Amino acid sequence: MTGSHSFDKALDLQPVDDTRMRGQTHPDWANMVGPFGGITAATLLHAVELRPDRIGEPLALTVNFAAPIADGEFDIALKPARTNRTNQHWIAELSQDGDIKTTATMVFGIRRDTWSDDESRMPTVTGPEGLEVSGPPLPWVSQYDMRFVENPFPAEDAEPSESSRTTLWVRDANERGIDFAALAAMSDIFYPRVFLRRGGFFPAGTISLTTYFHANGQELESIGGDYVLGSAHANRFSDGYFDQSAHVWARDGALLASTHQIVYFKG
Amino acid sequence: MTGSHSFDKALDLQPVDDTRMRGQTHPDWANMVGPFGGITAATLLHAVELRPDRIGEPLALTVNFAAPIADGEFDIALKPARTNRTNQHWIAELSQDGDIKTTATMVFGIRRDTWSDDESRMPTVTGPEGLEVSGPPLPWVSQYDMRFVENPFPAEDAEPSESSRTTLWVRDANERGIDFAALAAMSDIFYPRVFLRRGGFFPAGTISLTTYFHANGQELESIGGDYVLGSAHANRFSDGYFDQSAHVWARDGALLASTHQIVYFKG
Repeated sequence: MTGSHSFDKALDLQPVDDTRMRGQTHPDWANMVGPFGGITAATLLHAVELRPDRIGEPLALTVNFAAPIADGEFDIALKPARTNRTNQHWIAELSQDGDIKTTATMVFGIRRDTWSDDESRMPTVTGPEGLEVSGPPLPWVSQYDMRFVENPFPAEDAEPSESSRTTLWVRDANERGIDFAALAAMSDIFYPRVFLRRGGFFPAGTISLTTYFHANGQELESIGGDYVLGSAHANRFSDGYFDQSAHVWARDGALLASTHQIVYFKG
Repeated sequence: MTGSHSFDKALDLQPVDDTRMRGQTHPDWANMVGPFGGITAATLLHAVELRPDRIGEPLALTVNFAAPIADGEFDIALKPARTNRTNQHWIAELSQDGDIKTTATMVFGIRRDTWSDDESRMPTVTGPEGLEVSGPPLPWVSQYDMRFVENPFPAEDAEPSESSRTTLWVRDANERGIDFAALAAMSDIFYPRVFLRRGGFFPAGTISLTTYFHANGQELESIGGDYVLGSAHANRFSDGYFDQSAHVWARDGALLASTHQIVYFKG
């Protein structure tokens, strides 16, 4: 990891006191309203990673996007709700001027060698090399090299799609090596499934995002800055909300993360 | 809903002050160690339902099982982290003698009529009527009428299964009508997937559970005490942890909830 990369700059946090850290939104990671949700998720995870009393590696992260984060400084308050022998439960609140904007819970734990099996099956798709880079003109999108295998961001005159599934290869645009924070950010890389189903742009925003980290730190390190494959789909759209489930695999087919979210939409 | 049912007794909470409620574990809902995780999830959700300042219906629930809950009294501290016009974010902590045992975040929101589509496909299976009731001899299991379509709780001399998928019909044993709390409890009804894959019993416990509620209150009410179909599978087992994703449908094929968890296991 190099501190000069814009991902690391966005994750830069300074201690305020024993329970608080201060960060600042970074223009490279701006979305349409406030920062990209993935960078907020990554920052919250990184806040725990920085804690000297932290035990183990990330296992689970839930981020609740309660209100838009304004450009500028924010505070992250961290509380180790429970420390066990092999895992640790955290509660985090991100606030600006005393207003809570985001809440999160995280579980970190020690990984041990056990029976293992990867039941997920990475879709058989063409490699990233022959595909075009694409994505909407938003600052955070430019931080990634996204190559869509199936159902890219819909054009303005797009037809509705019968399937909500998007599959893409993605890596950091500057090939910064993947780590838990980067994987947390990539978990939120899929544009809202309602755009695809309805063929166009509709107001939409993630309300709550949960990511389970399957890979261990060594496994992530071995990927370096290579592409990973992400595939996302929705289950049900109703009453102004839909869910999304997604999986992220290494090029060799190993499942790195399972990630789920519930999204608000209009239309 | 009738207060005389053991589900409602387990959810009985008394206000302690403006931010705290007190409950008590109920022997009917005991698991091997502490209460069934589903009843804890339901109790936390119900605590918010009881709040006079609560807005809307449950959309998302994440419960982190930080430590076993001992038989007896527990306190639930609730904090409305953020109240918006159409939704509300809650943080909850369940403690015993000042020790945090469970944390949770919940999002409640107002549902509005929008474009809707159910992309999930309920598996085509035989109805519950011709199937046998089964399940391991645990108090909480007796509170349900479970009829397995595929991969019931493995016998002691079971062979390992190549698939981690279990599908079952389930209803409350006394046909208590389904509501959000009951659906939250049913989200945790699937025995640990490692039992199935390895063919036997292994120490295992849910660490974090997330449920997204797709159905609205009216839709749930129309189901009454009828069976719902649940189907669960795992994606990856490694380093002592695995994830599970499950879906719960009404008999007419409507997806009621998507639910996900990460589980600790030995073996």
